[in-house]
Amino acid sequence: MRTSIATVCLSGTLDEKLQAAAQAGFDGVEIFEQDLTVSPDSPEVIAARAADLGLSLDLFQPFRDFEGVDEAQFEANLRRAEAKFRLMGRLGMDTILLCSNVGTATIDDDEVVVEQLRRLGDLAERYDIDVAYEALAWGRYVSEYDRAWDLVRAADHPRIGTCLDSFHILSRGTDLSRIAEIPGEKIFFLQLADAPALSMDVLSWSRHHRVFPGEGSWDLTDFLARVTATGYAGPVSLEVFNDSFRQADTQRTAVDGLRSLRWLEANVAAAHVDSDQVRLDLQTLPQVAEPRGVDYIELDTDDLGALTRQIHQLGFRFVGFHRTKPHVQLWRRGQARIVVTESADIDPVSVDPDSAVPADATAAPAPASAVAPAPVSSGTHLRGIGFAVADADSAMERATLLQATEVPRDQAHDEEVLRGVFAPDGSEVFFGSGTGVDPTWTDEFGTVPDDRRSAIDHVNLAQPAHHYDEAVLFYTSLLALHAQVSNDVPSPSGLIRSQVMASSDGAIRMPLNLAPRSAESPETGSYPEHVAIACDDIFTAAATAVSRGLDFLPVPENYYEDLEARFDLAPELLQRLRENNILYDRDDVGEFLHFYTSTIGSVFFEMVERRGDYQGYGAPNAPVRLAAQHRRNAGH
Amino acid sequence: MRTSIATVCLSGTLDEKLQAAAQAGFDGVEIFEQDLTVSPDSPEVIAARAADLGLSLDLFQPFRDFEGVDEAQFEANLRRAEAKFRLMGRLGMDTILLCSNVGTATIDDDEVVVEQLRRLGDLAERYDIDVAYEALAWGRYVSEYDRAWDLVRAADHPRIGTCLDSFHILSRGTDLSRIAEIPGEKIFFLQLADAPALSMDVLSWSRHHRVFPGEGSWDLTDFLARVTATGYAGPVSLEVFNDSFRQADTQRTAVDGLRSLRWLEANVAAAHVDSDQVRLDLQTLPQVAEPRGVDYIELDTDDLGALTRQIHQLGFRFVGFHRTKPHVQLWRRGQARIVVTESADIDPVSVDPDSAVPADATAAPAPASAVAPAPVSSGTHLRGIGFAVADADSAMERATLLQATEVPRDQAHDEEVLRGVFAPDGSEVFFGSGTGVDPTWTDEFGTVPDDRRSAIDHVNLAQPAHHYDEAVLFYTSLLALHAQVSNDVPSPSGLIRSQVMASSDGAIRMPLNLAPRSAESPETGSYPEHVAIACDDIFTAAATAVSRGLDFLPVPENYYEDLEARFDLAPELLQRLRENNILYDRDDVGEFLHFYTSTIGSVFFEMVERRGDYQGYGAPNAPVRLAAQHRRNAGH
Repeated sequence: MRTSIATVCLSGTLDEKLQAAAQAGFDGVEIFEQDLTVSPDSPEVIAARAADLGLSLDLFQPFRDFEGVDEAQFEANLRRAEAKFRLMGRLGMDTILLCSNVGTATIDDDEVVVEQLRRLGDLAERYDIDVAYEALAWGRYVSEYDRAWDLVRAADHPRIGTCLDSFHILSRGTDLSRIAEIPGEKIFFLQLADAPALSMDVLSWSRHHRVFPGEGSWDLTDFLARVTATGYAGPVSLEVFNDSFRQADTQRTAVDGLRSLRWLEANVAAAHVDSDQVRLDLQTLPQVAEPRGVDYIELDTDDLGALTRQIHQLGFRFVGFHRTKPHVQLWRRGQARIVVTESADIDPVSVDPDSAVPADATAAPAPASAVAPAPVSSGTHLRGIGFAVADADSAMERATLLQATEVPRDQAHDEEVLRGVFAPDGSEVFFGSGTGVDPTWTDEFGTVPDDRRSAIDHVNLAQPAHHYDEAVLFYTSLLALHAQVSNDVPSPSGLIRSQVMASSDGAIRMPLNLAPRSAESPETGSYPEHVAIACDDIFTAAATAVSRGLDFLPVPENYYEDLEARFDLAPELLQRLRENNILYDRDDVGEFLHFYTSTIGSVFFEMVERRGDYQGYGAPNAPVRLAAQHRRNAGH
Repeated sequence: MRTSIATVCLSGTLDEKLQAAAQAGFDGVEIFEQDLTVSPDSPEVIAARAADLGLSLDLFQPFRDFEGVDEAQFEANLRRAEAKFRLMGRLGMDTILLCSNVGTATIDDDEVVVEQLRRLGDLAERYDIDVAYEALAWGRYVSEYDRAWDLVRAADHPRIGTCLDSFHILSRGTDLSRIAEIPGEKIFFLQLADAPALSMDVLSWSRHHRVFPGEGSWDLTDFLARVTATGYAGPVSLEVFNDSFRQADTQRTAVDGLRSLRWLEANVAAAHVDSDQVRLDLQTLPQVAEPRGVDYIELDTDDLGALTRQIHQLGFRFVGFHRTKPHVQLWRRGQARIVVTESADIDPVSVDPDSAVPADATAAPAPASAVAPAPVSSGTHLRGIGFAVADADSAMERATLLQATEVPRDQAHDEEVLRGVFAPDGSEVFFGSGTGVDPTWTDEFGTVPDDRRSAIDHVNLAQPAHHYDEAVLFYTSLLALHAQVSNDVPSPSGLIRSQVMASSDGAIRMPLNLAPRSAESPETGSYPEHVAIACDDIFTAAATAVSRGLDFLPVPENYYEDLEARFDLAPELLQRLRENNILYDRDDVGEFLHFYTSTIGSVFFEMVERRGDYQGYGAPNAPVRLAAQHRRNAGH
């Protein structure tokens, strides 16, 4: 499958966009005309640059407001088209996108439109150019893909075909069955975008909120499979207008985009499109199942005493030092394992985020997988998560094919090989094959039996601005996790966007949080992350913590009074909650009891007990936690 | 008129919100229940704190999902209500907001709802509490204000009244005429919010995009006048859910809010509400007319040589040094005047943004007008704008009553007194009474006659994040400017939100720009501002600039080729544009020709020639400028 990306998806100059697309591994690009207009490079220079980078220039776009006009206007439009055809000749391009008329159409008459398309085709023929006619969702008279196809079919001109764009089609909820009527060779171009489910005018939705496939709510696997079945053999191209992408790092966005296409391609390949028409060569990926659970959490710390004291207060037992790395310790509480690494001993240049991108980017492009992750914060912080997967080698191979950057790590010859990649937030994702209760890598630390029913319940990760959507696709495509509905949590310094990535059985639960960049905390990195431990008796856990002197995050009395008004709790239960700073939530299927610790560096802990079939995270209590943390930060 | 604000409008803790409301000068607050729930202070402590601050606690809110339910649910709801009534007693509060049922209503029957409201009234009576019933725009069965009023009237209970909220009413476009049917004493509360015209689901619109009166698109003067005419005598309160306000400085948002109410109050007072029912005591403000023009621009610079060279290249003439301040110079080009101040000579502590807020805020609150503006950037930057107004004293008095902070400035006894205030971006706004061609203050610099037809065409200001809406209200309320439609301009590092504030005759034009906080330029302050000079012959101006060696911002050849395709320009004109880096735009009523200079510090210049009745700013050319500036910043 040939991959392409519209330059409008990316930030930066046209030259930066071309470089980024090539480095990520795209086969071609769509040239968004404005990017060319504002560029100081001539069309010939741009064409040569693309050729040097190994990129084809797949589509010149957009050409607007052409058809359905009176003859005088039409003549002027033909002159405009001819100027663009000449320009395309200088670029060596052969396909132009024609959007259905939004601004100037006055004639809603198929015969007129068909005749005007045909005359455009005659002109295009002279310049050896193909015209891909697309129905914009907000076109004045032509806004549905099947109407555009009917017009193209009626024009019956070898230079006039149609362009299918998933945004314009899926945003209108049009019946997709007529895609099958279009012969693949009359689909001159295919553009893909996903989008979150939003209820707003389609123009704003399109211009600001499109995302890459897998980052929104649409079934693009089905869509691409339908187009594939027509025999379409051209590029599969991303056209995404997104406010965040426009601000984000060019190279990262390009890698994110290519990942979305590789993932989608493999999905379609796995769907076994049942047609002898299929002419796209679809590459597969090693399939991975959802992780069975969290194998371990790894924390780096420059305050080993405080951190290990706190996890001990939470009932963790010390297993041992790593047999060859004395700065690394393992702690466990049932099946919850925490690897603690004292960062003073870490080689400070074990990862150099800048070293991977060559200074002279005109030299041979670095492999896309070398894109630098965001640097993680110093001090005590969450370094990574080990996932228990069925086949670690397949998971790693899939991750690499999906452009993830491998974490460099030394292993002694007799140690278990744990391989992993960087997540978009700079944390590390490791693939462990650990089967059974105690994974074999734990032998390197010694043995401490622990049959308590306890495990990692969830890990709450802070995401850097502009890379939230990338994170959703990353965990979806690499780990087969599912994005749950996103919501906003009020904090004293703004709304926090929160979205849970989870496995079907709840063994993996990871809320991703995007904190506002307020005046108070301009660095998103200052938003703390946390590890939640599941236990089967929160009161026993709290009693242990109290006896060991845990610094609980305090819960205000007003909260318990409101709890009393909301739920008909037994006074004894209410009193026990109050005494232990335990929060409470309930829904139709169960209950949730939890308490929080103070924050060390950028990490804190939560102890949770789930009763019944409760699947949430105590969302109504999140503002209580955020306000308490805000007061502590402010030193109140 | 008694002013109030809902705590949900503001960032921070409840205590910080109360302090900010009091310091801004509000008479009272609405307590948003969640702010209380997450607070460590008991209701009694909060009540005492509010009393110390001189704030009344006007409304406890919200109480939800009460009416239209079956009897079992209703009993539970009454218990919930009673808990809240007891809590209100501890707070010393007497009015609660009841929102129409969104979640649990199953019975759409007026008789049931009326009976349930009446029974709630009986319970409220025992606690001496008034219930203000409000139709939420997305209420399940009750979503219109007049339906809520019909139910309240039918309940006919002294403890049951209605709450009018401009958002819920104006967002639905409901006919406002029935407001006049409601007796003022049955309106138990009044909440105001403005909103931009958006086409999205009303719940998201309400929860994220409300703004203060004067910052959106609705006619709240008319709305408030209608409510005033009913005899309503209670507080006029702001209830605004806004993502930016939640992140912004608490104190600044509070001042912005009070400004909106003072401005609205004066508008209603000036509208002479014609009813003997009016019981609100409406304060007026000194009226101001739109400014006649820009009197002068003041630039601070640490690179006097580069800056004065550039304005000389643009045809400015040196008028002289200020007669007592040798570090201040005046330059002019016709009626365009630029005061240049060499910043090395400026007292670096003439404004201390932090000094105005007392460290111990429990002491007597500082006057609201002492809120610190954002500090301006160093280097060459736009320090302020002098506006030619009809009555400078009235303008200054109005500005002060609207909570603006006066700029401290020394005047010698024989110098003209120019007074001014800080704008939200930290720049200075001065009110000059200068009548005739040469304002009298210019005598302090000497006299250089200059009858060229040239003036300040527009000034393009960068706005800090979170204070964009505040700026719109600031210029609207202080200077009687009008906000034009906002739009987004694509740049290589993201979309730039742009909104023009202008006077009706175009003598004042100020595009406000909000730049994205990209990875590349995390500080919004790095987005440059510019001063555009109007001339009547752009080619002569360009020729002068060329002969004097101006560093033009270069315009790419691709732009001129696109211009050729878009407009049928004479080849000679196109060639002259190309040779001088002049950009071109045209609409139905005129033409616009303009060129840009390089940037010095955070300022650059534009020379413009308007032909015919062209009123725009060459918006299609903005991406060309932004890309060229991006390349220069990146050193390409």
